Amino acid sequence: MSSKKITIADIAKKLDISPTTVSFVLNGRDSGISQDTKNKVLETAKAMGYKKSFLPSIPDDWTKVAYVTSKVEYFNFYTSFFAHVYNNLQKRAQQEKFDLFLLELNPHEGYMNCHRRIEEIRSLGIEVCLSNSKDVAACLVAAGFKCILAQGGSMADCICIYCDDYAAGREAALHALEMGHKKAGMIFFSDNNNPRFKGFLETFTANGGTCDKKHIWFASSNHDEAASHIEKMASSSEKLPSLFYCFADNLLFPALKGFSRAGFRTPDDISLIGTDNLYWGSVATPAFTTVDLCEELFAEKLITAITHTKEGKVPYQLAVPVKLIPRETVKKIKN
Amino acid sequence: MSSKKITIADIAKKLDISPTTVSFVLNGRDSGISQDTKNKVLETAKAMGYKKSFLPSIPDDWTKVAYVTSKVEYFNFYTSFFAHVYNNLQKRAQQEKFDLFLLELNPHEGYMNCHRRIEEIRSLGIEVCLSNSKDVAACLVAAGFKCILAQGGSMADCICIYCDDYAAGREAALHALEMGHKKAGMIFFSDNNNPRFKGFLETFTANGGTCDKKHIWFASSNHDEAASHIEKMASSSEKLPSLFYCFADNLLFPALKGFSRAGFRTPDDISLIGTDNLYWGSVATPAFTTVDLCEELFAEKLITAITHTKEGKVPYQLAVPVKLIPRETVKKIKN
Repeated sequence: MSSKKITIADIAKKLDISPTTVSFVLNGRDSGISQDTKNKVLETAKAMGYKKSFLPSIPDDWTKVAYVTSKVEYFNFYTSFFAHVYNNLQKRAQQEKFDLFLLELNPHEGYMNCHRRIEEIRSLGIEVCLSNSKDVAACLVAAGFKCILAQGGSMADCICIYCDDYAAGREAALHALEMGHKKAGMIFFSDNNNPRFKGFLETFTANGGTCDKKHIWFASSNHDEAASHIEKMASSSEKLPSLFYCFADNLLFPALKGFSRAGFRTPDDISLIGTDNLYWGSVATPAFTTVDLCEELFAEKLITAITHTKEGKVPYQLAVPVKLIPRETVKKIKN
Repeated sequence: MSSKKITIADIAKKLDISPTTVSFVLNGRDSGISQDTKNKVLETAKAMGYKKSFLPSIPDDWTKVAYVTSKVEYFNFYTSFFAHVYNNLQKRAQQEKFDLFLLELNPHEGYMNCHRRIEEIRSLGIEVCLSNSKDVAACLVAAGFKCILAQGGSMADCICIYCDDYAAGREAALHALEMGHKKAGMIFFSDNNNPRFKGFLETFTANGGTCDKKHIWFASSNHDEAASHIEKMASSSEKLPSLFYCFADNLLFPALKGFSRAGFRTPDDISLIGTDNLYWGSVATPAFTTVDLCEELFAEKLITAITHTKEGKVPYQLAVPVKLIPRETVKKIKN
């Protein structure tokens, strides 16, 4: 706590070389640094009275964990799910002794970039990786990292934690029926054996509801295009169902816009249910009725998985429960 | 490209030790690793026919650049500005030979965590840091890093690139007047000598508009609280101005909610202008009229600043131009 404590930066400044070089020399990671530089650093450090800090760069019993995303831009964009999961991990990091990173690895950026990034992840000493992308996970596993797939489907030899997406569709269907809706449509990006899609369709029809094929619409992931498509479909349909289930809350924005342009108000004319509790849907007007993917619980399951993975135990798969949040986009229909 | 290429992971598996240890030994960063382990790794690598990859972990002429945020959670949350700037940097990274990272450093998390994170940033070999937080930048500069402040105000001895926030307020005021609004209110998180605040107020009043003090409201950064406050203020005001300028688009969500609850529709009863072109405001209904902070241009200015900083040239300050985007939240008033 002395005010005159000599730092690595001071030595670097004095010698007009980079602090990284000084740090490497003083910490013994000096391969590739010339003997001349090494000597200068060591002599200067001694002359200036540098005392090596006794804080270890990381205590031995901490675990270095990286959430590896293919692109940081999407980490908190179409969904706030991953950011909220990460935030919940972060809240527990100190207590769990996790040193947590968010890192990027884009397997489609070419071998050279991928290789470089993997070596960088290695140089950080990361022990367990989390990713929501199978491509990223496959890359990491190939490079020898222990990896957990988080809301990225399932993969062999890897702990897979995912939201119970079938239950998300089911909960939406049960809420729709409870609110008196007998006919529903669906707006998805694609069918693709999606468990949310199946969960809604099977539950809604098994409990007396009707879901006409002509009201199952597929929209572009470009929200402007999606809004135009929904406007067109809504304008050209003879009789619309009273409710639409949307794959995710980010799709509710173009749905609201498309229906509004076609002259339908939500929830008076058309009710909408989304999934994943996107933050901006909770503050929008009307506020989105949605299925919450329980990020805090999800993070808790990841924490258990991290320890399990670190210890090299047998992988498992786990579906995390979900929960409907009623807000303002679903109208109660009196029958 | 042989299908039988021996990898670090293979060696690690054979010896039942971590790939990180193997990598450290094979790359000469072996301080702290026992001689016994070193020998085992080297012998096994030889016996298995391991050939060191000739791809360098990073070519010498590339620059390692880190955008350092205090909390990844906020990187793409209240504003999509930083994520879009980062994305624009990323698009240019290959061409500019930047190896780009997003890293976290929270100066308020305690000395131990801060120190550890700084050593980790150092171990990645980061040469230039960007941050939008003065606290983060101060920490990094103290640790000997070259740092650029990006939309974080101004700081001595540091290149500071920021949006022209005064012009943002000015452009909003000029648009309001152009659309026939003579009386305006303002909704901000705080005054605090904010240039957007001044830019709007000074321009609006200098050009014939009136901005009554009782219509300058300060809202909580908690959006639910902000909506309740705006509802209360709108309900209790005798006569509201026809337009409100909001500090940022994220505040337009609670503004729309508060006015809607108080019985005012946007834009029919109340017009709203925001700033920063939050993505969700562009897909919301009505779509937000806002001031765009020109992220692509901002990223271009950062690229110049990174090279300038790396070369150790004299710091400078630069305001990046902004641009109004008219959408659906402002009504044209006939006088």
